[in-house]
Amino acid sequence: MNIPQTSFPRVVIIGGGFAGLAAAKGLEEQEIQVVLIDKHNYHTFQPLLYQVATGGLEPDSIAFPLRKRFNDVENFYFRLAEVVKIHPDKNIVETTIGDLDYDELIIATGSTTNFFGNTNIQKFAMEMKSVPQSLNIRSLILENFEEALLTSNIDERNALMNFVIVGGGPTGVELAGALAEMKKAILPKDYPDLDIRQMQINLIQSSDCLLKGMSSKASEKAEDFLIGLGVNVWKNLRVLDYDGKTVTTNGEDNFRAETVIWAAGVKGQMIDGLQQDCVIERAARIKVNEFNQVESYTNIYAVGDVACMSSEKNPYGHPMMAQPAIQQGKLVAKNIISKFSNKKQKEFVYNDKGSMATIGRNKAVVDLPKWKFQGVFAWFVWMFVHLFSLIGFRNKAIVFLNWVYNYIRFDRETRLIIRPYKKKNKEINF
Amino acid sequence: MNIPQTSFPRVVIIGGGFAGLAAAKGLEEQEIQVVLIDKHNYHTFQPLLYQVATGGLEPDSIAFPLRKRFNDVENFYFRLAEVVKIHPDKNIVETTIGDLDYDELIIATGSTTNFFGNTNIQKFAMEMKSVPQSLNIRSLILENFEEALLTSNIDERNALMNFVIVGGGPTGVELAGALAEMKKAILPKDYPDLDIRQMQINLIQSSDCLLKGMSSKASEKAEDFLIGLGVNVWKNLRVLDYDGKTVTTNGEDNFRAETVIWAAGVKGQMIDGLQQDCVIERAARIKVNEFNQVESYTNIYAVGDVACMSSEKNPYGHPMMAQPAIQQGKLVAKNIISKFSNKKQKEFVYNDKGSMATIGRNKAVVDLPKWKFQGVFAWFVWMFVHLFSLIGFRNKAIVFLNWVYNYIRFDRETRLIIRPYKKKNKEINF
Repeated sequence: MNIPQTSFPRVVIIGGGFAGLAAAKGLEEQEIQVVLIDKHNYHTFQPLLYQVATGGLEPDSIAFPLRKRFNDVENFYFRLAEVVKIHPDKNIVETTIGDLDYDELIIATGSTTNFFGNTNIQKFAMEMKSVPQSLNIRSLILENFEEALLTSNIDERNALMNFVIVGGGPTGVELAGALAEMKKAILPKDYPDLDIRQMQINLIQSSDCLLKGMSSKASEKAEDFLIGLGVNVWKNLRVLDYDGKTVTTNGEDNFRAETVIWAAGVKGQMIDGLQQDCVIERAARIKVNEFNQVESYTNIYAVGDVACMSSEKNPYGHPMMAQPAIQQGKLVAKNIISKFSNKKQKEFVYNDKGSMATIGRNKAVVDLPKWKFQGVFAWFVWMFVHLFSLIGFRNKAIVFLNWVYNYIRFDRETRLIIRPYKKKNKEINF
Repeated sequence: MNIPQTSFPRVVIIGGGFAGLAAAKGLEEQEIQVVLIDKHNYHTFQPLLYQVATGGLEPDSIAFPLRKRFNDVENFYFRLAEVVKIHPDKNIVETTIGDLDYDELIIATGSTTNFFGNTNIQKFAMEMKSVPQSLNIRSLILENFEEALLTSNIDERNALMNFVIVGGGPTGVELAGALAEMKKAILPKDYPDLDIRQMQINLIQSSDCLLKGMSSKASEKAEDFLIGLGVNVWKNLRVLDYDGKTVTTNGEDNFRAETVIWAAGVKGQMIDGLQQDCVIERAARIKVNEFNQVESYTNIYAVGDVACMSSEKNPYGHPMMAQPAIQQGKLVAKNIISKFSNKKQKEFVYNDKGSMATIGRNKAVVDLPKWKFQGVFAWFVWMFVHLFSLIGFRNKAIVFLNWVYNYIRFDRETRLIIRPYKKKNKEINF
């Protein structure tokens, strides 16, 4: 891997998401060599992926080149690679570009879509955890509309214009809202020869409320907003299968749809080589103690979505979201620095800053620890927080400009099929 | 294709580039049904593709959704399809989504890369005529740098950092300049552990001057600018072959390079079904008369790059650039309207507004009919003209913002490998 051996200890971080990035930042300007490994050369701001999928933003404005972030940082090395396995007995990470030894290892591999073992759904449904996946969804939506124009078979046309989103968490809610706005303002203009009323947006949630984990007020209001926008919200309905044509459920309603987006679950992006008892099989998360140390190891940490720090208060670990990831990444960096200088390590305490979701223009729900509100003001807060959280001035400026433009013009202009999904790219899901 | 038959005559336009778009615009608000067919759902502003390839702009800001452009136009239909063949005897266009009859047909298929029959070069060299191709170049440049980091073999590392651009026309010159600026300002920061001096940018031109077709002053100055930026300019050197490793030339110098960009020629994007004698084999262009009518047909027109209107003044037809394409598209629209109202058609007279090329920041060359100038002012003129020519307010604003940012920060921030080229996409060249 051509990383120089120095007298400084080496910390290897696997993954440049929220957690990995926070850890890498926290280790800057120390007498520590940091090596960050990621399979992408950019950090993805996942909360805005749904806007890339629905033509509101270009991918380059929500992603940031990892090398650029660390341009001026000494003793920092980035390597574009996938990790094959870790060898804790030898303190070695095995990657697609060679082996690398470490003194301390931070696993920040994040999460991936959880299909709960259903290979049919995995094969035919779309997922939205990365930029290329979001671009695939964008292409597919538009390709289906182009195809809908061509058929005289009503069932077929309905299937092409039927969108099923499985999962009523923030991703599903935000995507359903964005699709509903496309249906309202954009698609009737782009496809005047289609009857856009035939377009259906179905949001299917297995439990009895949307946005589980947020307040009941937020959940109810989000549902109201979605219904107002014309989304069919199905609660207490569980998707059993999808064969590429028909979505089968445990209820009376099945759906014939060409586009199914699976936002019903995530699981840790597991890594090979850990002892069996460190891993929670079902959720594919790594058990960590209150210092984010992986059980039975003292120099391996897991942070963010892939880590499960269970306690009485959080029996299933912290929510798989940006905030716990960032906070854990930061603290692990501090703790590693303390360790090297023989200081005491600090326990992780999650500071829940609240959560929010946007449904459409002027429509968002925000739960702060002491204040819960919905509507226009919530929407501005949502925008401000997301804009502020993007890395880099250019990204902030471009996203802001796009939002202002989209708001004024009721538009989402980046609806280009740059890489057709249906014809050529179906197998490429990088 | 589900296009309604009306009492209006139907004009079918193949291709939504500069020529096709100008023709479609010219036919708006007439008692004419217009059907535009393109294999992409967007218009590409080709003059700025090199900035997408070198990380200066995101693709969405130089492309524009074709449907959006014609949102409010009545009797206009867009179809996303590839044309298989035309059948002039039956007045039918055969496409991948079915047949369509026409009253008047405008062929505006543009041009494609001309490898002059060399299948090796076609297989191993990169081309840059479309957005996906530009993104492939962007990915390849960055992937090669990531790989260069890993090897200890000096020859291999040099090959990975050796860029050969074949063709000293505007595309080759602009690309070489942009790469030189990446070498200067960005790559040393992103890859501090590489010796960027080893990066070579070779621009190979078969004749004795760059920018053939522009003034000798422009040509000389462009060469000066490039040399000043550290580009190796090779004149009177002809590339004979490239096997993926070594570029063979007719001179003493061969080049070992992993990245070869072929900008040495274009040819018409020919269409099947025309009589043999309408086609100029070598250049793959369609012979047209002064009304852009294809020889031996009265209701088939060819415009833009694919058309060859030869005259005493222009024995090889007009240059394959945006200006003749736009002017021909406009005039053909007018002439078709005249034809339907039994008015006299007008001959095409090319209004040469001049040409320009940019080499780098503050460095451009401009040839206007009555004034030729180079340097900072030329660069501002180049920027203004290109900004002004982009379609849509959003695109103009985003490009402007990027340019200001890149200028102030000496940066090109959109350097993301969104779809790896080397590993996965080599066969996909859509």
